[in-house]
Amino acid sequence: MEYRSIYFDGDVVHILDQRYLPFDITYCVCNNEKDIFDAIREMKIRGAPAIGVAAAYGMYLGLRDFDGDSNDFVEKAKELKSYLDSARPTAVNLAWATKRILDKILENKNNDVFLLKKLVLDEAKKIEEEDAERNYKIGEYGSELFSDNDTIMTICNTGALATVKYGTAFSVIKRSYEKYTGINVIALETRPYLQGARLTAFELKEAGIPFKLITDNMSAFVMQKGLVSGIVTGADRIALNGDTANKVGTYMLAVLAYYHKIPFYVAAPISTIDFSIETGKKIPIEERSLDEVTHCGGKRIAPYDTEVYNFSFDITPHELITAIITDLGVVYPPFKKNLRKLLSNPNR
Amino acid sequence: MEYRSIYFDGDVVHILDQRYLPFDITYCVCNNEKDIFDAIREMKIRGAPAIGVAAAYGMYLGLRDFDGDSNDFVEKAKELKSYLDSARPTAVNLAWATKRILDKILENKNNDVFLLKKLVLDEAKKIEEEDAERNYKIGEYGSELFSDNDTIMTICNTGALATVKYGTAFSVIKRSYEKYTGINVIALETRPYLQGARLTAFELKEAGIPFKLITDNMSAFVMQKGLVSGIVTGADRIALNGDTANKVGTYMLAVLAYYHKIPFYVAAPISTIDFSIETGKKIPIEERSLDEVTHCGGKRIAPYDTEVYNFSFDITPHELITAIITDLGVVYPPFKKNLRKLLSNPNR
Repeated sequence: MEYRSIYFDGDVVHILDQRYLPFDITYCVCNNEKDIFDAIREMKIRGAPAIGVAAAYGMYLGLRDFDGDSNDFVEKAKELKSYLDSARPTAVNLAWATKRILDKILENKNNDVFLLKKLVLDEAKKIEEEDAERNYKIGEYGSELFSDNDTIMTICNTGALATVKYGTAFSVIKRSYEKYTGINVIALETRPYLQGARLTAFELKEAGIPFKLITDNMSAFVMQKGLVSGIVTGADRIALNGDTANKVGTYMLAVLAYYHKIPFYVAAPISTIDFSIETGKKIPIEERSLDEVTHCGGKRIAPYDTEVYNFSFDITPHELITAIITDLGVVYPPFKKNLRKLLSNPNR
Repeated sequence: MEYRSIYFDGDVVHILDQRYLPFDITYCVCNNEKDIFDAIREMKIRGAPAIGVAAAYGMYLGLRDFDGDSNDFVEKAKELKSYLDSARPTAVNLAWATKRILDKILENKNNDVFLLKKLVLDEAKKIEEEDAERNYKIGEYGSELFSDNDTIMTICNTGALATVKYGTAFSVIKRSYEKYTGINVIALETRPYLQGARLTAFELKEAGIPFKLITDNMSAFVMQKGLVSGIVTGADRIALNGDTANKVGTYMLAVLAYYHKIPFYVAAPISTIDFSIETGKKIPIEERSLDEVTHCGGKRIAPYDTEVYNFSFDITPHELITAIITDLGVVYPPFKKNLRKLLSNPNR
């Protein structure tokens, strides 16, 4: 079955509504920036790279009917960027993508609005294409860290649904499965939103990769039983020192991996590295609606008026990360020094 | 609201069907040993101490209509014990309770069947009454480990629903709340069966104790944020060296507590200590139906034909346990030596 998390048909943006997966494959149509904002906010589309691409097209949809001069076009683009960036605060790819669009406009602000609109659309398409290329490389580099008969543990969804193609951590899994024999996966269901049970299980099945689904609280026990060769997760934002924000439970896995002496890898395109912040302390952690915790699969499970914490992400400190798999290669500690080197890479 | 996990009305046993909590309070009637077996197996009643009491009454229900001589009565009791013990393999309290009934019969096997039936019923009632007394003491001893403004983390349900009264780990929480000011609780929802979200949240609300519900994968992050003073869990079986089988996720919390230097306590009556096994390696781990993992709150969440692991329990090695809170006092390491001392306690 062919599915795409997002595509632009030349007129409108189509987004696969992931809230209804794995049972219903339904696309929603985004006509304007508000449709894109809502799709991100309501998690019709999710995954750091995918929401970056969505936001880039959101910039275009918000600007294509603009009627005014170039100066006002720039102002409108700035407003749009702020608006779209606020849809979800933790993943840096969103703000990174809208910044790329805005930078392209600023570089060419002396041109007429017609050309600016074309440049915006071209840049959004470029962001989309680059995502697929980058993820392919992540898979190539990351798969070097695994070998025959390995069982790879992962959390959340980092596959084609979370990106444009291939995925991030999922790309490492997929490429390892293609290259080696006996590759198995253990997927955490990833409460509260169940991206593991709903989306990763769906993508693993589609790819024919053998896997076991577990509840998040079984992760330590399967490590203790020796069932896990290595762990690969995605990332929503990586600070310069390697501290990584990702789906809540990632930090849990990193601590458990450390205790069980299992390698713990983070896989992300370099657009996920926030070169403007030194440590994870500066990364905002999104807290979402309490309903996500008091409900499961749309059904209430906890008593009425139950109070919850609902941190969507956590921060894994760099000292628990064995290596960061990027599209420019595998980066080992010291991350502060070695991530900074990427800044000077011409392919960045 | 008054609720009891189990009671005998002089004729039949009533069991609060916990599968429908917290929304429906429904009791089911057990007329015979098969009804008890099914109630335990299907988790209408759960919690190590509570299923011990249920099994004791199951022995009585299976024997009260017995028509034969004392020798055959003994044989019938042995069969019943094997049958009931097989309902769930991990919790030792079940086999411990049926053994108490059988031992009472064996001690008095030269008496007539009429008297034996009376002794069986008396012993079942005694097991029920002792459970409440023991749990009260667990709360008294355990609360000494906490103080004002502490936030206590717990997993699964260990309250009155898991026992006859007060609970085990829950008794420690409740007594701490009564004795100190500013006590708060963080309850893990405890997938796949959601005993935390459904039952512990229900009991905490009934008791008026402030709490936050979290998904299991948030546990590490709230520890990292400094929100947890100590962790108390129940136990399904404790080996002589202190290794503890309990709800899956307990071992995860123990590793996370160790990493974050947070005290990790196990609370259980001494009927939970299996003096016949040296280490946790000998404890059988129940694996339950895959439906529990592929579904949540009765609704399918994972694709069809998804394979899962569903370990209901895990083993926490003794070196990760700060202390074991029993009805005879708080036991510190070395557990091998100090648990053995309990064997000579006259109140055992």
